[in-house]
Amino acid sequence: MTGELRVIPIRGIPELEEGDDLAALVVDAAQGFEHEDVVVVAQKAVSKVEGRVVDLADVVASKRARELAGDSDPRRLEVILGESREVVRARPPLVIAETRHGFVCASAGVDASNAKGPDTVVLLPLDPDATAARLRGRIGELSGVAVGVIVSDSFGRAWRLGTTDVALGVAGITAVLDLDGQRDVAGYELHATQIAVADEIAGAAQLVMGKLDGVPAAIVRGLRVSGDGRGSDLVMPRERDLFR
Amino acid sequence: MTGELRVIPIRGIPELEEGDDLAALVVDAAQGFEHEDVVVVAQKAVSKVEGRVVDLADVVASKRARELAGDSDPRRLEVILGESREVVRARPPLVIAETRHGFVCASAGVDASNAKGPDTVVLLPLDPDATAARLRGRIGELSGVAVGVIVSDSFGRAWRLGTTDVALGVAGITAVLDLDGQRDVAGYELHATQIAVADEIAGAAQLVMGKLDGVPAAIVRGLRVSGDGRGSDLVMPRERDLFR
Repeated sequence: MTGELRVIPIRGIPELEEGDDLAALVVDAAQGFEHEDVVVVAQKAVSKVEGRVVDLADVVASKRARELAGDSDPRRLEVILGESREVVRARPPLVIAETRHGFVCASAGVDASNAKGPDTVVLLPLDPDATAARLRGRIGELSGVAVGVIVSDSFGRAWRLGTTDVALGVAGITAVLDLDGQRDVAGYELHATQIAVADEIAGAAQLVMGKLDGVPAAIVRGLRVSGDGRGSDLVMPRERDLFR
Repeated sequence: MTGELRVIPIRGIPELEEGDDLAALVVDAAQGFEHEDVVVVAQKAVSKVEGRVVDLADVVASKRARELAGDSDPRRLEVILGESREVVRARPPLVIAETRHGFVCASAGVDASNAKGPDTVVLLPLDPDATAARLRGRIGELSGVAVGVIVSDSFGRAWRLGTTDVALGVAGITAVLDLDGQRDVAGYELHATQIAVADEIAGAAQLVMGKLDGVPAAIVRGLRVSGDGRGSDLVMPRERDLFR
């Protein structure tokens, strides 16, 4: 039985630089944590402190990047191709690609907006689950509370308009809640019901983080989702994927 | 600037029957509403009061339904085909279809679990935006507060595992927040950033509604998303759809 949920923006985190102790900045800015809190941190914040920023001045576009770029900067497409395991769909300059992690998303997660300058792009973390685990460890060390952590990003969806935030990296919580074989209040068995709770938590956090406000983290309080899920749990296994 | 968000389950709504005044039951069960509240109501609750329930005993399966059914009940597939404008993917007995409304989802939204009996299925509302508008009107009439309303359902996603709740019907709020041309805190223009806020709100509500708890409605409080969006705003226009 879940009670009320609170979604609390963590304000006052300064502009981030490579090497910053992000967990310490989150702990300083937050008004304390409670048992079972889930701390959601925007991928872009993580990528900046991990140095996953590329200056396009250092990039030479290949022929393929130029083809996919359309009227846009082909160096950006070159970076996207470097982050991609496979291009799933392309309509220049729009590319939907599978990333090195297995995520299928626009531009392989390479993002220009809110970057460190007009000619820089921000890449996804190399290992978002490892990032989430490190943040969880360090927040626990500094605050004494074993929070859950989600590293979130905004993904588009097939067939639906607009982005929703999803969980790239997860630590200390269940990512997919499996209700297979459990019975609902009417006594009927729920078949193969899997709820992507980590994605719903990431989406809830986005509602207070916003794109314009510069709030890179939030707390979701009141859930009971402790567990050992990973962001990779949320990736559809290739053999079950009807859309590739 | 968004402050803290609260997500409040509305408990104590009785088992629903066709013709019930759902808005009145929601108003009775809720502890009052505040200006800018968004009330999220599960599709299944709406469908039950609107009589969108089919007894499979009344259904005769066609040849195509039998082909798509695999080892499952072909009458269920017959109902799914009746709700479908187009079958997008099929791997018997799994069917991803475009519904009469334009939603692309598993089983054209036809659902068996938590239904009124083992041989009944629940269909999507005929017009979820009209349902949301009616609920909004009636809740306003009874409570004096002009809340926003979302009719939500659990959808799977291409490439990602598990369902997240999304908004089928919307009234009184913005469905897709368009940040195109706005500037973020660093002063860079955000290009073509559209956030599916109504879907994120539906997902946040799901976290307190659950599948097992029998809580068919929730309040999301603390947002400022008043507007005149519709659930249909969240459907990717066919000409922009890369995945059909």
